[in-house]
Formats: sequence, structure tokens, C-alpha cells
Amino acid sequence: MQCSFMNTHLKPPSGLFDGPLHLFPVRVYYEDTDLSGIVYHANYLKWLERARSDMLRLLGIDQRQAVDDGVGYYAVADLSIRYIAPARLDDEVVVVSQPAELGAASVRLHQRAMRGNDMLADAAIRVGFISPDGRPRRQPQGWRQAFQTLLAAKDAA
Amino acid sequence: MQCSFMNTHLKPPSGLFDGPLHLFPVRVYYEDTDLSGIVYHANYLKWLERARSDMLRLLGIDQRQAVDDGVGYYAVADLSIRYIAPARLDDEVVVVSQPAELGAASVRLHQRAMRGNDMLADAAIRVGFISPDGRPRRQPQGWRQAFQTLLAAKDAA
Amino acid sequence: MQCSFMNTHLKPPSGLFDGPLHLFPVRVYYEDTDLSGIVYHANYLKWLERARSDMLRLLGIDQRQAVDDGVGYYAVADLSIRYIAPARLDDEVVVVSQPAELGAASVRLHQRAMRGNDMLADAAIRVGFISPDGRPRRQPQGWRQAFQTLLAAKDAA
Amino acid sequence: MQCSFMNTHLKPPSGLFDGPLHLFPVRVYYEDTDLSGIVYHANYLKWLERARSDMLRLLGIDQRQAVDDGVGYYAVADLSIRYIAPARLDDEVVVVSQPAELGAASVRLHQRAMRGNDMLADAAIRVGFISPDGRPRRQPQGWRQAFQTLLAAKDAA
Repeated sequence: MQCSFMNTHLKPPSGLFDGPLHLFPVRVYYEDTDLSGIVYHANYLKWLERARSDMLRLLGIDQRQAVDDGVGYYAVADLSIRYIAPARLDDEVVVVSQPAELGAASVRLHQRAMRGNDMLADAAIRVGFISPDGRPRRQPQGWRQAFQTLLAAKDAA
Repeated sequence: MQCSFMNTHLKPPSGLFDGPLHLFPVRVYYEDTDLSGIVYHANYLKWLERARSDMLRLLGIDQRQAVDDGVGYYAVADLSIRYIAPARLDDEVVVVSQPAELGAASVRLHQRAMRGNDMLADAAIRVGFISPDGRPRRQPQGWRQAFQTLLAAKDAA
Repeated sequence: MQCSFMNTHLKPPSGLFDGPLHLFPVRVYYEDTDLSGIVYHANYLKWLERARSDMLRLLGIDQRQAVDDGVGYYAVADLSIRYIAPARLDDEVVVVSQPAELGAASVRLHQRAMRGNDMLADAAIRVGFISPDGRPRRQPQGWRQAFQTLLAAKDAA
Repeated sequence: MQCSFMNTHLKPPSGLFDGPLHLFPVRVYYEDTDLSGIVYHANYLKWLERARSDMLRLLGIDQRQAVDDGVGYYAVADLSIRYIAPARLDDEVVVVSQPAELGAASVRLHQRAMRGNDMLADAAIRVGFISPDGRPRRQPQGWRQAFQTLLAAKDAA
């Protein structure tokens, strides 16, 4: 296999902002399902996390750098999720995320998994910013600002 | 490698009932952690599911048979979880489960992940019984009875 | 959160064919890593499977339909993989796949995970087609033809 | 829920040595399966890793301490695995592991997943010891000694 002509411009999936909403598409693969033929409940949380990471990236927040520099990372503090309709192999799902409230060291978000106009799951999640030694820490100033802009866009919508 | 003398009596991990509580031990492995050095939040849900499956098995409920016979299976309807303290590699964790309310087609449970006397996570979960075609279905009579016995033990405690 | 104006044209990630090679982009998320800060070895296999599923989809093979119709599905028969360089959070990885040999009931593929020009992992995988009762089964005629076209393109390259 | 009377003596699953072989039991849970009703191929690798971690622990090797002290950790360098028979929900599986060759910075192992006398999967795996900055590093002296003892037991068997 010759790989030198690799298409290096092929980018991984990314979401986008639609006003104050962040949209992130995922497809259902074998790994997501269990023997009941539908997506295993815990795997929705992975989709939600991918969507949050993508949202951060689009906001200009570099999580990898923050980890490497010893600044810290987000950790889920609590979440509640309702499973409304099942997702199956090859389904195209869009995770819709919206920050709901900004604290000094945490953010609350509302996240939904949609298949077309059908809501598959509806979640409320709070993530806290954590220093490398595991303590709550104020979010970096630039990160707070990015969320504030998003919250302002929501209130204006 | 000679395997004929295999120790076939080596049993996989199992939990036990302590009065109305079901206790199920797990250990933290590499697969459970993420780059922040602690257990990834979605993986707690897998532990909780293992504990529920173990509880069913100890109650004499054969999930595999129910799937094979086309009777149905449990699916998580909703859950909320609070992450209180992180778990790390090699930690010994006990999942403590207790049915809280029995419906015709669903069960509500309270589940906690404990490390010694430290509570790591605290969850409330509702699982619904589902027919193979995905519709809510009454739980088999014997299953309801098993849960009722457990709930009665709780009220007596 | 208003979802009625949902952007329904947002498509999940997809790969593409570059001559006989199938390219599929993935990004590294928290879920992929472990406490050592790099991608957990087993998670590469999930990326490879997503790439194979995407390749099948682009070839016009509908796995979901085949499962629903009781035709069958692919199962990994054997694989070998070499881990050459680690992947880290946010890395953009491209899985390069190429069918290597077509049997009546199986396909051999060569798959590589690349980060730019760096090879992260190099794998050889054989998947077998399996009937719903778990027995090896001839691949559907149309599927064989799709692979043959791909193999012919490879030989011509 | 009263947890103060928690049974703190409930230990997580552990394997044991049977001569030169390390045996580690696992049970199949929902999380392990996919829509085809059998264990997803990548999840066998998690079982194998749990077994290796358990083997290290029984040998007196403290992986957590080595990570915390910045000594290093094992990373899979390469593996090959043959999937021979499928595993299904509730199956009791024993992972049989045996070191095959000890290098300065790596160990080769042979690992099998057995269900009773049926071999489900057969794997050869090489893990390399890695410093926290990602470079190959000699395994700690005590660790090498532990493996040597095991290899000697194998040759004597």
C-alpha cells in the first residue's frame, strides 16, 4: 500500500454553530450497539462528550494545550438523561448542545440527540473545571468569555 | 500451552445481597480511565449495568434466556448521576444497588459506587422492560415477584 | 431550546475513495484515551471498524438492511496490529483501508492509522460473513462484486 | 439507603496462578456485546488487558505506584488474535495467560479466552515498558525477576 500520496486535507468530522446552538453529527456504528440491537445507553454519553469537545474547539478552546500545560480539564460533575427513542446501526444522529449557565468553575449545558426531528435523548449536564491535582479551579478567562458570548447569543435568540 | 487441566471451577466475579442491598465489586482497569488519570464518566454506567445484571442473576432472573426466547430485555429509560469523587487505576469499588420502586413495566433503582466508606458516585436509574420489537412490556411475573421480595426486605429493614 | 429549525442537512463524517484506497478521518476524544495520556490500544480497533463500515456504505452495501433481512453480517475472524506511534487528544487521524483478498465468505483487508505522514498503527484483518445463526455464509453477490471492482482498481494502480 | 454497614471485605474479582498459567475469569455483560448478539471483537482486548493487569498485581507489581512515581507503564506494542467461537451474554469466560519471552523493555505473552474447554480466542501480545515521556524503558528489576520466575516455572512444567 502506497501512502505517500495521502490526502492530508481530509478532516475529521466537525460540528457547527447554528445561532446559539452547537450541532454535531454522529453515525451509529457496531461499537455503539448491544445485543438488543440498539445503542447501548452509556454510549450516548460519549457522543455528548465528543460534541462538547467539538464545541470547545470551535470556540477556540484548546483542551490538549490546557492538559499539556497543567492548566486543567473539564470533568462531568453531574448529569441526567432521558432515553426517548432508540438509535440503530447506521442512523444519522445530530447532537444539539447549548450552554445553559456559566459559573466560575463550571458550565451547565443542555444536550439533545436528534435523528431528523425525532428526539432520541435529552440531557442536562454540568461539567466542572479541574486542576491536574483534581481540585475545582476557575475556568481560564478566555474560556469564560467564549461561553458568555454563546449565552448572550442564546438570550438574544 | 496446555489447557486441558483448566481450572473450570474458577467463577467470574459475583456480588451478594446484604439485606435489601445488592453489593457488586469492581476494580478499575486501564480501559476505565482517560487521560485525566481518573475513570471516564460514562464508564461508571457500565459498572452500574454489570451490578444490575448481577442482581438479576442472583434473583434467579435469566436475561439471556429471556432474550433468546423473545420475551424481552431491560433498557435504561432515564438516569441521573452525581460524580462525587474520582476513581483511579486499581481502586477497589463496590456498587451498592437497591430497588426503589416497582412498576408494571419498569423498576427504579438507587445505585452508588463506593470506595470503602467514600461515595464516588450516586445514581438514580429507571429501567423499562421492552419487547424484542422495542415496545414497553409488563415484566415477567416471576421477575416482579423477585423485586417485590426485595422491596419488602427494604421496608422491613 | 428550539429545535424545529434543526439543520437536517448536517451529515455525519464520511470517508472517500482515493483510487483503490479508502480514507476515513477520525479525531481523538477523551473516550479514546487512557491514563497514560494516549489512545488505548483496543480503541484503534473501533476506528478500523468504523472505516470498514464506511467503506461498505460507500460501496453501496447496506449492513443495516442485511441485518434486518436476516441475511447476515461481518465478524472479525482474525487480526494483527502493530502500534507504531501513540495518538493523543485532538489528533486528526486518517484510517487508510484497502481490500487485499476476496474469498467466498470472507475479505482480507490492510488498514493503517495515519497522522499526516506518520503511521500510528498498521493492521491486517480478515472479516468473515456470518449468517444470523452464526455460521459462515457466502457474501451476497453484489457485495462480492463491489470488492472485486476495488481489487481490480488496486491491481491497476 | 444506609451504607455505613457496608461490607468492606467484598473484594473485586481476581485471578490465580495454576502453575505457570495465570487464569482470570470474566462474565459477558451487555456492554460487551453488539447488535449481532455476540461479544464485539475489540472488547476481547479489554479482557486480555484486565488479565495482564491482574497477573502483574498477583506478581506484586504495582502499576498504579509506577504511574504515580513517574516510572512508566506498559503499552501494547503489537498483537495478533484469532476469533474462534463467539461469546454471548452471561457466558463465563476464563482468560489464560502465559509469558512467552522476556526482553529488557518488553514481554511477550500468549493469551487465550476459554469457555469451559472451548477456545473462543487465541492471542499473542507484546507489551513494551514505556517511560512517562513515551520512550521505551527497561522494566524495573523486580518486575523482570517476577517474569523470570514465571518463565522458569513454565520451562519446568
